[in-house]
Amino acid sequence: MDPFHVIAPHLAALDQFMRDQALHFEPEIRDMAAYCLEASGKRLRPTLVFFSGWHGKEAVDDSLVRAAAVVEMVHLATLVHDDIMDRAELRRNRQTASRKYGPDAAVLLGDALFSQALHIASLFPTAEVCRLVSASTRRVCSGEIMQTLRRRDTNVSLADYRRMIDLKTAELFRTSCYLGAYLSAQAPGFAEAADRFGHHLGIAYQIYDDLVDFLGEEQQIGKTLGTDLATGKLTLPLMILLERIPETERTALLAALREGNTTSLASSQKRMHQLGIGAVVIQAIDDELAVALSALQPYAAIPAVQLLKELAALLKRQVTRLSAVNEGQR
Amino acid sequence: MDPFHVIAPHLAALDQFMRDQALHFEPEIRDMAAYCLEASGKRLRPTLVFFSGWHGKEAVDDSLVRAAAVVEMVHLATLVHDDIMDRAELRRNRQTASRKYGPDAAVLLGDALFSQALHIASLFPTAEVCRLVSASTRRVCSGEIMQTLRRRDTNVSLADYRRMIDLKTAELFRTSCYLGAYLSAQAPGFAEAADRFGHHLGIAYQIYDDLVDFLGEEQQIGKTLGTDLATGKLTLPLMILLERIPETERTALLAALREGNTTSLASSQKRMHQLGIGAVVIQAIDDELAVALSALQPYAAIPAVQLLKELAALLKRQVTRLSAVNEGQR
Repeated sequence: MDPFHVIAPHLAALDQFMRDQALHFEPEIRDMAAYCLEASGKRLRPTLVFFSGWHGKEAVDDSLVRAAAVVEMVHLATLVHDDIMDRAELRRNRQTASRKYGPDAAVLLGDALFSQALHIASLFPTAEVCRLVSASTRRVCSGEIMQTLRRRDTNVSLADYRRMIDLKTAELFRTSCYLGAYLSAQAPGFAEAADRFGHHLGIAYQIYDDLVDFLGEEQQIGKTLGTDLATGKLTLPLMILLERIPETERTALLAALREGNTTSLASSQKRMHQLGIGAVVIQAIDDELAVALSALQPYAAIPAVQLLKELAALLKRQVTRLSAVNEGQR
Repeated sequence: MDPFHVIAPHLAALDQFMRDQALHFEPEIRDMAAYCLEASGKRLRPTLVFFSGWHGKEAVDDSLVRAAAVVEMVHLATLVHDDIMDRAELRRNRQTASRKYGPDAAVLLGDALFSQALHIASLFPTAEVCRLVSASTRRVCSGEIMQTLRRRDTNVSLADYRRMIDLKTAELFRTSCYLGAYLSAQAPGFAEAADRFGHHLGIAYQIYDDLVDFLGEEQQIGKTLGTDLATGKLTLPLMILLERIPETERTALLAALREGNTTSLASSQKRMHQLGIGAVVIQAIDDELAVALSALQPYAAIPAVQLLKELAALLKRQVTRLSAVNEGQR
C-alpha cells in the first residue's frame, strides 16, 4: 500500500483549500498572501494530519483538510519570518517573501498568515483546535527565539539543542498528529500516542534536515548547502564534530563560527566526512524513530498506524540514501 | 461621574492578569515576554472593552478582563513589530524590544505575543472570541502592510488613507467595543452599535495621533516628534498640506519625502502652522466623533453608553488642548 496514494484526494483537497484561502485576505495583500500560499512544499505537516486521521476510507474528510490547512499555514508563516532572519533569498527555487516584498512587509505578511491560520482553527465547532494550535505556535516561536539568540553561541549543550528542536520542529509535528487522531476519534488514547509518535518523528526529521545541510546534494534539496553553518546555527553534526576534534582545532573552529568565517567553516564540512560524523548522527535518527514507533505499538490494528509506520520507514530510507552519499564522498 | 474611576478595579485586575501572563511563556523567553507585557501604555483598547461592557456595577467581570488582555496583547505584538519597521529605539521612554533584543528576536517575540493572545481568546467557552480576534488581527496586519508598502509613495488618495487607518487602527477599536458589549449582552443590537462607535472613534483617534506628531510637545508624548514625517508615513495633516501649497513647493516637498530629506521635512512642519492645517484636521476629528456618538443614540439608557460618551468627550478635550498649543506656536 502506497500511503501517499491513499491520501492523494486529501492532499488535492488541501491544495484547493489553500488556493481559495487567498480570497480571505484583504484585497490589498491578496497577491502577496497567494504568493506565500502557492509555495508547494513537502506538505509534511498536512500529511501527518491525514495519516493520523486515516479511517481506512478514501472519502475526503473535510475537518482533516481544514486542520491540515491550519498547521501548514502556521508553518508557512514561520518560514516567511525565518527567511527574514536568515536573509535567505531563495526557498524551494522561488524568491522568498522577504526578498520579493522586502523584510518589513514580510514581517506583517507572516503575521497575517498566522492570523488567518488561527481564524480557520476558530471555525471548528470546538475551541479545542484553536487552543492547541495557538499554544503550539507560541512554543514554535520560543524555539525559534532560542535558536536566534544563541546563534554563534558556541556554548550550547546537547540538552539545549534537544530543547530547541523539540520546540521549533517537533512541536508542530506532534500537534499535526494529535489533531488528525483527535478529529477522527479512532480509539481512546490514540490521540496521545499519535502525539508521542509525532514528537519523536519531528526530532528525527530535524536531525535529518541538519545532516542534509552537511551531506546532501544541493540540487536535490533546493536550498543553499551549508546554510546552517554559514548562519552560525548549531546543529547536531556540528556539535558532535566539536566534541571529537583536538583542542587546537576546536578553538579555531569556534572562532570561525563566532566570526562567520566561511572559509574555515567549509573545511569543517570536509573534516566531518573524515571523522565519520555522519554515521553517529544517523544512529541518533534511528534511535528517535524507534521511540516514535514504539508509541504506536498498542494501536497496531488502527488503519492510521499502518500509514504512520510507512512514513517512519520512508524517513529511514532517505537517511540510508544520504548515508550512501556520505560514504561516496569520503 | 469619572469613567476611569468606575473601571479602576477592572484596570487593576487587567494589570495583574497581564503580569501573570509572562508565566505562560516558555522559560527561555519569559523575561522577554515580561518586558513587553510590562509596557504600561494608555490601555486604550482595554478601556474600550471595559466601557462597552459596563453593567453599572463595580464588581470585576472576569470575562471582560480576559477579553481586554487579548486585545491589549494583540496591540503590544503589533507595536513590537512596528518598532522593527520604524527602527524605533524608544517607546514610552523605554527601549523597544527591537533595540533591546535585536530585530530578529523581536519578530519572533511579537509572534509569541500574538499566539498567546489568541490562546487566551481560545479559552472562552465560545469560539466566537477567537473568530473575531483572529480576523481582526489579520485586518490590522493588512493595514500595516499597506502603510509599509506605500511609505514614501506620495500618490496616496484620501480614500487610500482612510482605508489604511480603518484597518490599522479603527479595526481593533471596533473589535474591543464589540467584545465588551457582546460579552456583557446588554441589549439586542447594542454590540453592533458599540462596534460602529468604536470604528469611528478609532478613526478620530488615529487622525488625532497623526496630528500630535506634528503639533505636540515631545515630553508629553514620549515618542520622537516628527517621526511620521521622517519615516515617510502619509498622514492626514501632510496630505492636506500637499493639497494646499503651490505647485513648486509641492514638488520640492514630494521629493524631500521620497528621499527622506529631514531638513526639508522639518520646514514643512512650520508651513503647516502657517497655513492653519491644524484647524482643518481638527474638523475632520470632530466629524468622526459626531458619527461615533450618533451610533450610540438609540441606546442612551444603557450604563455603558454614559462611559463611552465620556470617552469621546475626553478625546475632544485633548484635541482642543492640542489646538491651543497649535495657536500658541503660530
